[in-house]
Amino acid sequence: MSDRIPLIAANRVSDNAKKTLDIVKKFVEERCIPADPILSAQIGEGHARWENHPAIVEDLKEEAKKLGLWNMFLAKGHYKESPGFTNLEYGLMAEHLGKSRVASEACNCAAPDTGNMEVLAKYGNEAQKKEWLAPLMDGKIRSAFLMTEPNVASSDAQNITLNMKQEGNEWVLNGSKWWSSGAGDPRCKIYIVMGKSDGGNKDPYKRQSVILVPANTPGITIHRMLSVYGFDDAPHGHGHISFDNVRVPASNMVLGAGRGFEIIQGRLGPGRIHHAMRAIGAAERALEWMLMRINDPKKKPFGKNLREHGVILEWVAKARVEIDAARLIVCNAAITIDELGAKGALTEIAEAKVFVPRVTLEVIDKAVQAFGGAGVSQDTPLASMWANSRTLRIVDGPDEVHLQQMGRNENKKRGALATATINKQQETTNQMFAKYNLKPSQIGDQIQFQKSRM
Amino acid sequence: MSDRIPLIAANRVSDNAKKTLDIVKKFVEERCIPADPILSAQIGEGHARWENHPAIVEDLKEEAKKLGLWNMFLAKGHYKESPGFTNLEYGLMAEHLGKSRVASEACNCAAPDTGNMEVLAKYGNEAQKKEWLAPLMDGKIRSAFLMTEPNVASSDAQNITLNMKQEGNEWVLNGSKWWSSGAGDPRCKIYIVMGKSDGGNKDPYKRQSVILVPANTPGITIHRMLSVYGFDDAPHGHGHISFDNVRVPASNMVLGAGRGFEIIQGRLGPGRIHHAMRAIGAAERALEWMLMRINDPKKKPFGKNLREHGVILEWVAKARVEIDAARLIVCNAAITIDELGAKGALTEIAEAKVFVPRVTLEVIDKAVQAFGGAGVSQDTPLASMWANSRTLRIVDGPDEVHLQQMGRNENKKRGALATATINKQQETTNQMFAKYNLKPSQIGDQIQFQKSRM
Amino acid sequence: MSDRIPLIAANRVSDNAKKTLDIVKKFVEERCIPADPILSAQIGEGHARWENHPAIVEDLKEEAKKLGLWNMFLAKGHYKESPGFTNLEYGLMAEHLGKSRVASEACNCAAPDTGNMEVLAKYGNEAQKKEWLAPLMDGKIRSAFLMTEPNVASSDAQNITLNMKQEGNEWVLNGSKWWSSGAGDPRCKIYIVMGKSDGGNKDPYKRQSVILVPANTPGITIHRMLSVYGFDDAPHGHGHISFDNVRVPASNMVLGAGRGFEIIQGRLGPGRIHHAMRAIGAAERALEWMLMRINDPKKKPFGKNLREHGVILEWVAKARVEIDAARLIVCNAAITIDELGAKGALTEIAEAKVFVPRVTLEVIDKAVQAFGGAGVSQDTPLASMWANSRTLRIVDGPDEVHLQQMGRNENKKRGALATATINKQQETTNQMFAKYNLKPSQIGDQIQFQKSRM
Amino acid sequence: MSDRIPLIAANRVSDNAKKTLDIVKKFVEERCIPADPILSAQIGEGHARWENHPAIVEDLKEEAKKLGLWNMFLAKGHYKESPGFTNLEYGLMAEHLGKSRVASEACNCAAPDTGNMEVLAKYGNEAQKKEWLAPLMDGKIRSAFLMTEPNVASSDAQNITLNMKQEGNEWVLNGSKWWSSGAGDPRCKIYIVMGKSDGGNKDPYKRQSVILVPANTPGITIHRMLSVYGFDDAPHGHGHISFDNVRVPASNMVLGAGRGFEIIQGRLGPGRIHHAMRAIGAAERALEWMLMRINDPKKKPFGKNLREHGVILEWVAKARVEIDAARLIVCNAAITIDELGAKGALTEIAEAKVFVPRVTLEVIDKAVQAFGGAGVSQDTPLASMWANSRTLRIVDGPDEVHLQQMGRNENKKRGALATATINKQQETTNQMFAKYNLKPSQIGDQIQFQKSRM
Repeated sequence: MSDRIPLIAANRVSDNAKKTLDIVKKFVEERCIPADPILSAQIGEGHARWENHPAIVEDLKEEAKKLGLWNMFLAKGHYKESPGFTNLEYGLMAEHLGKSRVASEACNCAAPDTGNMEVLAKYGNEAQKKEWLAPLMDGKIRSAFLMTEPNVASSDAQNITLNMKQEGNEWVLNGSKWWSSGAGDPRCKIYIVMGKSDGGNKDPYKRQSVILVPANTPGITIHRMLSVYGFDDAPHGHGHISFDNVRVPASNMVLGAGRGFEIIQGRLGPGRIHHAMRAIGAAERALEWMLMRINDPKKKPFGKNLREHGVILEWVAKARVEIDAARLIVCNAAITIDELGAKGALTEIAEAKVFVPRVTLEVIDKAVQAFGGAGVSQDTPLASMWANSRTLRIVDGPDEVHLQQMGRNENKKRGALATATINKQQETTNQMFAKYNLKPSQIGDQIQFQKSRM
Repeated sequence: MSDRIPLIAANRVSDNAKKTLDIVKKFVEERCIPADPILSAQIGEGHARWENHPAIVEDLKEEAKKLGLWNMFLAKGHYKESPGFTNLEYGLMAEHLGKSRVASEACNCAAPDTGNMEVLAKYGNEAQKKEWLAPLMDGKIRSAFLMTEPNVASSDAQNITLNMKQEGNEWVLNGSKWWSSGAGDPRCKIYIVMGKSDGGNKDPYKRQSVILVPANTPGITIHRMLSVYGFDDAPHGHGHISFDNVRVPASNMVLGAGRGFEIIQGRLGPGRIHHAMRAIGAAERALEWMLMRINDPKKKPFGKNLREHGVILEWVAKARVEIDAARLIVCNAAITIDELGAKGALTEIAEAKVFVPRVTLEVIDKAVQAFGGAGVSQDTPLASMWANSRTLRIVDGPDEVHLQQMGRNENKKRGALATATINKQQETTNQMFAKYNLKPSQIGDQIQFQKSRM
Repeated sequence: MSDRIPLIAANRVSDNAKKTLDIVKKFVEERCIPADPILSAQIGEGHARWENHPAIVEDLKEEAKKLGLWNMFLAKGHYKESPGFTNLEYGLMAEHLGKSRVASEACNCAAPDTGNMEVLAKYGNEAQKKEWLAPLMDGKIRSAFLMTEPNVASSDAQNITLNMKQEGNEWVLNGSKWWSSGAGDPRCKIYIVMGKSDGGNKDPYKRQSVILVPANTPGITIHRMLSVYGFDDAPHGHGHISFDNVRVPASNMVLGAGRGFEIIQGRLGPGRIHHAMRAIGAAERALEWMLMRINDPKKKPFGKNLREHGVILEWVAKARVEIDAARLIVCNAAITIDELGAKGALTEIAEAKVFVPRVTLEVIDKAVQAFGGAGVSQDTPLASMWANSRTLRIVDGPDEVHLQQMGRNENKKRGALATATINKQQETTNQMFAKYNLKPSQIGDQIQFQKSRM
Repeated sequence: MSDRIPLIAANRVSDNAKKTLDIVKKFVEERCIPADPILSAQIGEGHARWENHPAIVEDLKEEAKKLGLWNMFLAKGHYKESPGFTNLEYGLMAEHLGKSRVASEACNCAAPDTGNMEVLAKYGNEAQKKEWLAPLMDGKIRSAFLMTEPNVASSDAQNITLNMKQEGNEWVLNGSKWWSSGAGDPRCKIYIVMGKSDGGNKDPYKRQSVILVPANTPGITIHRMLSVYGFDDAPHGHGHISFDNVRVPASNMVLGAGRGFEIIQGRLGPGRIHHAMRAIGAAERALEWMLMRINDPKKKPFGKNLREHGVILEWVAKARVEIDAARLIVCNAAITIDELGAKGALTEIAEAKVFVPRVTLEVIDKAVQAFGGAGVSQDTPLASMWANSRTLRIVDGPDEVHLQQMGRNENKKRGALATATINKQQETTNQMFAKYNLKPSQIGDQIQFQKSRM
């Protein structure tokens, strides 16, 4: 909805994007959000949750395609397959998508497919694109990105150890992965797998590779799905998977052996913006629910509507301020990617990564508190949005890793400069004192003479 | 474990209680915590979750009884049925029970049975005690407390509207309840129900009554169970239940019609201490898991164990400080109940109610963050402890209600006094100025003369 | 410095403004900051602090004028006297001015003169402009704005009670004012005074007026100056002033009797942006000092430079994120004023008012902590910047007043809408369930049958 | 006043101490607090601030002595000179002393004299005691403790570098000190100085010594006094002092060369408790002022007394909770010192050191905000209490140093234990699974078979 474009960013949003934004908003509000409970019901119970493909998803995908809402994430100027929106413009759309569980998939803009399509579009060769990118872009199949491992500190990608060994015209993979999001979906046909192909390489950034592994390759076992708080996120799911002598043709290597770091770094930037903007949508939706609650005429503790309680009004106001600040942070990052590329936007992306989820979690938590029991239950979208948002402080590296990196960068960029500036200023001050024939006044600087009276 | 008794409280803990504390600790650490995953497995999948009674629970109950760990919550001096521990002493035990999902039930100290047994012991007549208190104290049946309603702001108990109408020798109940915790358990045989029996009474504190309703009374429908951040808490559960012309004999009324407020106020005090101390146990367990994680030799992001990262050490330290402060707050409240009764401990109980869950949630959240993905998943106890602890900021009244009440009380107690004190001090100051023949010095108080130069 | 323009705002900054920004930056860094200690020394000690006019100020004013840095605050399009910068452009300049104590005055952009000049330019008649606006714009005199009163809750301007009574061709003023900032300066020649001229008016927004009172009018007494955390802010100062039958000609009334609210509302908008942007400058300067400190080779607690301590790096990173968010918030507010006027930017201005000082205070406080003792002392600019920034949470209305107002507005704008939207979505959901021939799945919804076994 | 003794600690407070507490309370409330403005006026203006000895202080000392309020800090059982109070009992008194600026000195319980007297009583020889301890205990002279240095990171005492060289029967001192609190007072006659006497010693804890230096020894220059925010704390003051070949007799060495660490460690424990309890007194006084303000009938923003605003009531309530938690933390630490000595109470003392000042600062800051302008000014005690309390996060080592130390200790004490416990629990779980013939249930663990359909 164009009323959510901060004025500061408005002059960078094309008329077409504005029109599309209105369509996205309407589609999300009127079709997707109402469809979320249908999705839940169609997913079913027990083991069936991992086998069903909810019909509602395909229906909504048809609707979205007809509305021209398809693959909007592929940024203009970066991908020839792009429908023509900038990162800023898609970011504003992603905010709306983030309000519904089903909306992103309905528009073929769901993680991890988005990042995976970017990898294939950017680094894949023609054969790889034809086999995997085409059906992904058509929404025919889904994909997973297998990087995180259970037995190492994966926040540092150098620790990734899944073994990749070349044997003839094949690579043989052995090891374990988890948090393989999307791997639970029966339509998930392709894994993009990071592993260690050259552990002895002197350059630690050349030890890892990224390779394409069809999900049904022999030797792959899905052990189980990981839950997020009490949610299993079926049928999508977060898989714990092992590779036991899994063999794939050498032609499945992406970009070339040893170029894994290059690929994952290229993958992460815009994806973080997507996550962040969806999180803002979640925060806005939480605020909407809170607003509904505090005006509910049935809910009058101590004779007053909740909206008349000053403490609650302060929650609403702070939510407004924080969400607006968060949106500006993400829009600024998106624009920086648009203008300077993801590499030129490292600080801005990291800022969004760290700032936004805290805001979203805080807003949702306050909404939960305003609801009381209903807030933690299935009767509001709050609990599941909270659980989902909580993972954003962990995925793609925990906050703390980003903060350390940012702290170091800031110090590198400005530490020596700050010291030099302040030193120079103090020299100038000394010259000025001389010029004005003055001395700095200091409190109690005549006390020494007093001591003589002792 | 006696090493968790703050020195400040130690001289109030009897030798017998210290010995029992050690037994509780050992039982929880060595039997109950290991049994928690067995419990999960025995609960099963799908609808069976609401029908199974996990065998492990009965086995542990046998063990506990043999160890003398049974009904410790019934406070010495308050209940003739008490095994002889003070609220302080049981509080220290409850900390250990709070580390395991199964431990409280294993010792027959689980909510809501504890509060319900207190109600029956304190307010029940002999027939009611014989029929319901006896089997509850034996651990033969379980119970639920039905107060919260879906369609009103239940944080203000005056809003409770379930209709209770006397017809001849029966009361007829109509209405809805939710968050009826424990109602999912097939062994839950008795509901203690609050309703409105005399809505027109001029005294708003005499409109409600509390009555005993056997769970299998015709007209009762359990519609569904409420989830807590994705967890269904089966088989215990949190029921959404309706009453449609449910008839119970007038003799099931507790204490007398119109005395509901009296009963619920008597019920809440010690229960809040139990919740709070169990929450401290949860915090300690979260800290233990965090400590394990930061020493895990396999988890070395950027070449250093997590324990070498200053930020993480600060988390550990702050957790230690906050948990210790929380424990002191609860111990002080327990002692105040022991010495002055629950009514004399309103402020101290409210302080524990508000202070402790925030600490627990913060400690658990930091532990989650230290773990990354594992922290939000089923592989650590953190996610479910977090969800459980989050409800403590809501149950028995949301924090905000308690804070408003405390603020008002503090102002009532000390507002006028503070004004009088400060005014009197300022008078004395004026007299002293006179005595010393001085005037207060004020900055810039000679400026007026300067203005004349203009 | 143009490197501080967030990319998101850059395309709204003219080349001329960018050039001027560079000049401002250089002037502040190389002339003003070094001059601050000279200013302190020239102010002197004791009562002389209120009589001296530090020579350095006039010297810097000469320099600034030559550099074309004069009255930049008067926004393009709003004032015919404007040097041609938008609120956004001046905002970016104000950030630099905020790094030095003397810089704003050196460029004739210091509060309260800026707001007062705006009032005169916007609401003054030609005679008033000639007599007071002209010398103010020339930097010949200074001014004060007398609104706050010691005996009422001034955060609610309706409480202002200084009595204004018309007698013939004069208005007679009686009452007290305090926090009359700038009134200590011997060059402060004119007070813009708000008072109650028609207390009985039915429209509470027509009871107050604003009138011009020369500082040397008989009947005015400056009782003293108020300190801010021990700082007297001489010679500027914050006056406590009484009016005893102070008579001014009726022609001194601004805009007309009863139009005081109109004037103060017009006055506040851009001024808050100025305060906010200067506060960001203070935060950046605090961060610079912190960076200097953590790289100081002499300061190595426990064998490591402070920059190697993870906790400190996190402070640096969080400061970076928060400052950048704050700057975006203010830039967005400035742009909104530029495009929609101050009335159209109420929310955005309030967001800046509330968000920015908290960030600044937090960054300064962390810098203080990094310095230890030096941080609280006169050896860094931190303590005085902190005290100054702390007042921003109070002046022009305390945070809490703005938050309540924002909360109410947000609820007014979106409360009913949110309720309607969610209700409509739930209706659609129900229709979809019907269409797909499904029922919402609910946990434990078959339990009712189980109860029959009892 | 005995109404501030937490029940949890009450049975450890003797009747005599309770009586004395009441006397202290009365003396502080009725004599000292009213005298604080007299003190300010007697201190005077300009350089005189460092020469005056305010008469009110001596008058109050006379009163205090007559009331039996003298040297209460010297703990029973630790010092033969003790008036007979435990650390807990004195701690409770110190809370009252902390409400007034003059009260501690009036009772001869002011820092740094208290710590210095402890050093002399504990480590001084008879001659040292006679010359310096006796007049200090009589309140005839005052003292300073010179440890912190301007050019090193003094939070790590190993960095202390003031050079101490033995020449014949003398030690010669060269170097600089700052934050020498109390050195501004003309009655400050003795400095206890830490320096480096044996920089080459292999044991880093034996390089420093502590020596007694009369304040009027030639070679000592007081350069200036350091301010705290804008307060100079005259006449006490915080000195910046240099030593230029300052010669003192070898007999002035305390305990023996190389034993400096031993001394400063013994000095710090109880002193931190004193600081902490006085800080709680400051918090209570701030809360009293806030209560006065919110009941002030003249201060009604938007037609309601401040006490009717929910947000403000929440501030009051949170202040109550946090202050009570803080008091418990300090009482527990005091009791631990009483029972186990300062060495056995390291964790508890550090907890008080870190926890309390944050609470005090927060409470004062909220009180400031409730007052608005008056809060930051000289019209309330809030601003100066805030500045004073802010230093507590820095003196005796910044919070961060204590937190790192605590984190490391906690990990040392419980890290390996936690790992072993959890591992053992998991083994037991496995045995239980075997016993019950069960397998852990895992979500989605049958998915592998489904993949075959692909």
